[in-house]
Amino acid sequence: MATDPRTRLVQVDALQAFIDRALQAAGMPAADAGITATLMSQADLQGSDGHGVIRLVPYLKRIRSGGMNLHPNLRLVHERPGMGVLDGDNGIGHVVVSKAVDIAIEKARACGVAWVGTRASNHAGPASLYARMPIEHDMIGLYFAVGNANHLPPWGGLEMLLSTNPIACGIPALHEPPVVLDMATTVAAYGKVKAKAKAGETMPEGWMIDREGRPLLDPKRAEEGFLLPIGGYKGFGLALIVGLLAGTLQGAAMGREVIDFNRDYVTKTNTGQAILVIDLRAFGDPAAFKARVDTVVRDLRNAPRMPGVERIWMPGEQSFERRRVRAAEGIPLLPAIVDELAALAGELGIAPLA
Amino acid sequence: MATDPRTRLVQVDALQAFIDRALQAAGMPAADAGITATLMSQADLQGSDGHGVIRLVPYLKRIRSGGMNLHPNLRLVHERPGMGVLDGDNGIGHVVVSKAVDIAIEKARACGVAWVGTRASNHAGPASLYARMPIEHDMIGLYFAVGNANHLPPWGGLEMLLSTNPIACGIPALHEPPVVLDMATTVAAYGKVKAKAKAGETMPEGWMIDREGRPLLDPKRAEEGFLLPIGGYKGFGLALIVGLLAGTLQGAAMGREVIDFNRDYVTKTNTGQAILVIDLRAFGDPAAFKARVDTVVRDLRNAPRMPGVERIWMPGEQSFERRRVRAAEGIPLLPAIVDELAALAGELGIAPLA
Repeated sequence: MATDPRTRLVQVDALQAFIDRALQAAGMPAADAGITATLMSQADLQGSDGHGVIRLVPYLKRIRSGGMNLHPNLRLVHERPGMGVLDGDNGIGHVVVSKAVDIAIEKARACGVAWVGTRASNHAGPASLYARMPIEHDMIGLYFAVGNANHLPPWGGLEMLLSTNPIACGIPALHEPPVVLDMATTVAAYGKVKAKAKAGETMPEGWMIDREGRPLLDPKRAEEGFLLPIGGYKGFGLALIVGLLAGTLQGAAMGREVIDFNRDYVTKTNTGQAILVIDLRAFGDPAAFKARVDTVVRDLRNAPRMPGVERIWMPGEQSFERRRVRAAEGIPLLPAIVDELAALAGELGIAPLA
Repeated sequence: MATDPRTRLVQVDALQAFIDRALQAAGMPAADAGITATLMSQADLQGSDGHGVIRLVPYLKRIRSGGMNLHPNLRLVHERPGMGVLDGDNGIGHVVVSKAVDIAIEKARACGVAWVGTRASNHAGPASLYARMPIEHDMIGLYFAVGNANHLPPWGGLEMLLSTNPIACGIPALHEPPVVLDMATTVAAYGKVKAKAKAGETMPEGWMIDREGRPLLDPKRAEEGFLLPIGGYKGFGLALIVGLLAGTLQGAAMGREVIDFNRDYVTKTNTGQAILVIDLRAFGDPAAFKARVDTVVRDLRNAPRMPGVERIWMPGEQSFERRRVRAAEGIPLLPAIVDELAALAGELGIAPLA
């Protein structure tokens, strides 16, 4: 992305402060704007470009359209010692899911593991942000979410009834970076398709097909086709299971109930997410576990490589590196985004991105 | 499989009784032989041919070689209200994992969800058998296991340090069959490769590659190559996460520690499995949830289909159908297996397969 000469490098603090200003100008209370701005800028920092500041204008459009509640009353509608269902009252996803993770961490301390799901939530950015949160508490996070638009038909079908429903998992290591998987159950996430469109690039074969099953390469034609699941019918099965666990189980939208949040800015999305938190202390000495993770990671990384492969990467390791590089050098923002944010500043009457 | 004219149709009860006799003749206590024979014959009944009676001779070889403990002392080595780690004392996997699922069901009743993992376990047959067990209690099962031989290198690597590490999930429906996903994180499970070899068939392209990255089609040459993960690097990531959750977390073998149970019949495998059980009652009315699952299933099944597709199948639905058909018509056993079991009966001095 940094190849376009008009790409601008922005410091993460400046980006976070700008998002914070914009959300507060739109009427979001300071505490919630702070949480959301932090997580959105962290998404850009780690290279989840399809889930960071690129979403700011759509979020604001939804807020202005009355499609998101700026003053939600978050409450647990079901609760047991090891589980809870948090009703997000149509608040922004970042705030709702952060709260769900906090509750799950507390419950896991008592029970060893805990599951907290959400309903009446909204888009919350990259799954990895939430799967990573338990790590600093010496806990594992396993996260499931229902995506906010259906782009995947059942295997063999033509009607897009499933979203890319991601799975994410954060596992602490001792000296190595944590293992952090964050994967859509499709070959490509729809956010990546949108990023390609914004960058004016074509998609590789295998990301999408059209209704006749032919490869679809132009991301601007994305609405004429659908995403392909990983491993064919297996990816369909995973997307279904994740949707049932993250959505249906919590009473959140799934299948035909899912609102396409790129087209409909008014209807409540009733988004569902769920996190399982596992407290390492319940399984013995956390340091001993983390040392075993180090061993596995090093064995894998040091394996002999196929010709032409320079390095074997663990899940999350490239994001880890990118966070380091972007924290030092800044986050590259494409000209289209920079222009969009400049216009937004004028529109909201706030200080522009520094 | 039923196309070979020498294929024999066997009733599930007869198969179960034969496996039971064989295990008891090898010295397994009656209760454990009963559990194992039931689950092994259920594997064949549902069409998991790579995990049923085909494994009987290798299991007996391991028992005779002293590689499996016929009188294990199963005990919880870690326990919290919502979790447990069950040490299987090197007993057969079917017995160890069944016990782990029973404990998880009890704990889920109290906490809403529960995680029980195993260590010092062994191969336990198809993952779906265990993921399905909570269903009759109005619970969901989410199951992870470390496979018993490494066939998967890290993405870009050449050394097979990971197994096919399956994920399985059983979700109850109301009038529809339950949704039961059971998938290896590779395009094909190694059991399927073995079944192809036994049937004298070739593998489709995409299942395996050789060390130069060329397609490997002859299942008898399987040892010269390795399995391909689903979705490329994503499948590698999933296999790693599943291995860390099912193996490393419980103190079971993972990565380089995994024993190839097809070559080494003596060394303790220290197999790890884990199940998460979710009690639907904690989330509201189980019947309401199950009705919502029905709706999702029916919407997906009734979606318009691609040209040439006769039916859209849900995960587990084909196994469900196969169970029905095989319960009525019998389980088709290939001549090689029939001969093997006849020889085994003579060797053990037990009544042959009826």
